[in-house]
Amino acid sequence: MRIVKELLFDSTTKHGRRFDLFIQLLIIVSIINFSIQTIPNLSKNQRLILNGIELFSVIIFSLEYIFRVIFSGNRIKFIFSFFGLIDLIAILPFYLSIGIDLRSVRAFRLFRLFRLFKLLKYNNAISNLRKAFVDVKSELIIFSVATVFLLYFSAVGIYYFENNVQPEAFSSIFHSMWWSVATLTTVGYGDIYPITIGGKIFSSLVVFLGLGLVAVPTGLIASSFSKAFKDDSNK
Amino acid sequence: MRIVKELLFDSTTKHGRRFDLFIQLLIIVSIINFSIQTIPNLSKNQRLILNGIELFSVIIFSLEYIFRVIFSGNRIKFIFSFFGLIDLIAILPFYLSIGIDLRSVRAFRLFRLFRLFKLLKYNNAISNLRKAFVDVKSELIIFSVATVFLLYFSAVGIYYFENNVQPEAFSSIFHSMWWSVATLTTVGYGDIYPITIGGKIFSSLVVFLGLGLVAVPTGLIASSFSKAFKDDSNK
Amino acid sequence: MRIVKELLFDSTTKHGRRFDLFIQLLIIVSIINFSIQTIPNLSKNQRLILNGIELFSVIIFSLEYIFRVIFSGNRIKFIFSFFGLIDLIAILPFYLSIGIDLRSVRAFRLFRLFRLFKLLKYNNAISNLRKAFVDVKSELIIFSVATVFLLYFSAVGIYYFENNVQPEAFSSIFHSMWWSVATLTTVGYGDIYPITIGGKIFSSLVVFLGLGLVAVPTGLIASSFSKAFKDDSNK
Amino acid sequence: MRIVKELLFDSTTKHGRRFDLFIQLLIIVSIINFSIQTIPNLSKNQRLILNGIELFSVIIFSLEYIFRVIFSGNRIKFIFSFFGLIDLIAILPFYLSIGIDLRSVRAFRLFRLFRLFKLLKYNNAISNLRKAFVDVKSELIIFSVATVFLLYFSAVGIYYFENNVQPEAFSSIFHSMWWSVATLTTVGYGDIYPITIGGKIFSSLVVFLGLGLVAVPTGLIASSFSKAFKDDSNK
Repeated sequence: MRIVKELLFDSTTKHGRRFDLFIQLLIIVSIINFSIQTIPNLSKNQRLILNGIELFSVIIFSLEYIFRVIFSGNRIKFIFSFFGLIDLIAILPFYLSIGIDLRSVRAFRLFRLFRLFKLLKYNNAISNLRKAFVDVKSELIIFSVATVFLLYFSAVGIYYFENNVQPEAFSSIFHSMWWSVATLTTVGYGDIYPITIGGKIFSSLVVFLGLGLVAVPTGLIASSFSKAFKDDSNK
Repeated sequence: MRIVKELLFDSTTKHGRRFDLFIQLLIIVSIINFSIQTIPNLSKNQRLILNGIELFSVIIFSLEYIFRVIFSGNRIKFIFSFFGLIDLIAILPFYLSIGIDLRSVRAFRLFRLFRLFKLLKYNNAISNLRKAFVDVKSELIIFSVATVFLLYFSAVGIYYFENNVQPEAFSSIFHSMWWSVATLTTVGYGDIYPITIGGKIFSSLVVFLGLGLVAVPTGLIASSFSKAFKDDSNK
Repeated sequence: MRIVKELLFDSTTKHGRRFDLFIQLLIIVSIINFSIQTIPNLSKNQRLILNGIELFSVIIFSLEYIFRVIFSGNRIKFIFSFFGLIDLIAILPFYLSIGIDLRSVRAFRLFRLFRLFKLLKYNNAISNLRKAFVDVKSELIIFSVATVFLLYFSAVGIYYFENNVQPEAFSSIFHSMWWSVATLTTVGYGDIYPITIGGKIFSSLVVFLGLGLVAVPTGLIASSFSKAFKDDSNK
Repeated sequence: MRIVKELLFDSTTKHGRRFDLFIQLLIIVSIINFSIQTIPNLSKNQRLILNGIELFSVIIFSLEYIFRVIFSGNRIKFIFSFFGLIDLIAILPFYLSIGIDLRSVRAFRLFRLFRLFKLLKYNNAISNLRKAFVDVKSELIIFSVATVFLLYFSAVGIYYFENNVQPEAFSSIFHSMWWSVATLTTVGYGDIYPITIGGKIFSSLVVFLGLGLVAVPTGLIASSFSKAFKDDSNK
């Protein structure tokens, strides 16, 4: 029992560190496994192997969860803590889908992705990132609002220019929003674009505004992160 | 009467703050309402509800406008002030379109968007942004001129390379300008692109110039904003 | 005669400034005129008007050139100076194309664009820009070389991945270079893209490298310009 | 013999510098030659010339390699040094492909590209770049991991939104990864994009996150390089 306790809670001993590494690897393996299962036309044998890996990782995660509950001082507190809930959600989809047709719980299987959050336990950089975000919070809010305004404004504009000529692509302001996003972020898939002269002139003006509007907050975040990391390394 | 005065002009009292919030919500609701009305194939019932919401918001905005005129010290001054005009323009389209076929005043309905500007009243960040822009005004002008030059120069270049092979897409320098904008901003819809070897080499050179030219002013604005916000938070 | 001299050389007097402004406007008008002439299917009347404007501006530019030659202290020096040559090149295409079929001298007409350089005379910001570029020259050279390397390297890579499957689009390393440029600058027209799994993985890696490689020099230029402008405004 | 030694090892004498320049030119010529050989439908004469250039450069590189081995103090050490191996790999493909059908060793011919690394010998900026990277190593790792997470997360999301409607394009999470890369880097070829409303809203959110995530590390690298170069020029 003492060994189990050491494995779970003490990451300073050799065995504890090895166990941590093993769990981290298993998380990544089970996530990759989850991804491979979405590939269509897998053979029956391949499906069997993938399901086996899934079964194995769920068993390990379940044992880990049970032992963590048993050995924690305050069991109720652990169960409802952030990582306690994550540990539970990471294995729940498996047990709930037993006996149910898998296709109907497809979206539910997405919860298996929560296993990724289990990795956060091992990461110290999070607090750094949070600090950097808090520093530029007010600027980010202003620019987020400004971005939403510009997205909306350009959607309305392009709607009035293009709706008559392309009633399918720009069928409403909400459909035009998709164009706004694709254009102002400069993704430009090419599935929707202006063809009238007015629409082209309008979107030319708007895209330059958008470049500025997108560049400023990203620049602010970058410099804030840069500062946060520097402060940290100076300690 | 005193209550109305308090609601309209005093945002420090509990009722005044609630009224401000109510007006802001109504502005956003009426803008969303305006957007939904552009969706094609709405049922008659849906149209009725949307028109009802529009009617309600126009009545509230009208009452607000009338009371603001009545209770302001200098009525003429208020009517011709920035927010006085905005308040008027925000409701005018409704009254002018009564009895007129809506389709013919389509562009006119756009004025309802001016309601968004009513939100500016409640925003203190504007002066900050203006200061940041004033700081980099001269640089922005230089780079805007340089950008227009590069857009024009690349439009002329690509016109001479591609016009013979793609007379439809690159039919004149003005049509080529659309290519310039889509390429130098790296949107790249894919509706128009060079196919000759000369055109491809030319646009390769031009797009790298464009990346630099676009990055510099956005970087300048970003650092100027960053400074403006820092000065503000140091006060 | 004295008035002509004042108009041409003295931009401090009222008439001198007005004449400068007139010439600048005429340059812009003649450039716009040049652009409009590329629009296909112009009516005969429209062509007549455009040719009239061109004739008028050439006459003014010619007179300006002749008077500048006459009134300059050292005529030979002026003729072979930068702005002397620009002034000549700006009007030469017109005289050389008289009596020749216009279609054959199409590329030659491009020289009319040199009129834009005449505008440089009135611009003081150029020295500032030059200083900023000199400051980051060595960094720019290193990153330009690195960019060419990356462009070439990714062209070779994608050629080996895609050539077998898309022998038309990726027919040689030089053709693949066009894909490299469109991808690493994130323009992404969509005329040419990888379809093999290897090609997609390869281009995913390469585009992230490209983002970094493009961002660094633009960031360097931006900060250099920012410094150059600040130094200037502190004087 | 002394002359050969001087040519190879002493870049301070006039002959040594000339020889260095000659080798560098030959590297670039043989790389361009390699690229030209990929162009399809070359005539027999053109192929002969290109093969001749290749033969000539291989002979020179072989002689250079042999003499470097002979004249180096510690032959074993030189052969297994970085530049010793590069020199060997640069000529090996030629000798190995003699007598073998060229098509089957296509990928092998890629090793000729290693000649580019021979150019590194003449470059002093490398240590500068390495220092700049080391400075931001920890930040780069954090953001690389975050980028991989976001790429994966958005691939899973778009897979669940689009798989039912576009089972071809978004056939598995791995195929959706290609969309993630093309979208988050804003390349946006247009070969694959969401068409459902849910998918469009999801990708709108994700692309803004992606812009921030990509901008921050590139900004960090840029400022780190900027600092590294400044430190260097202050010495």
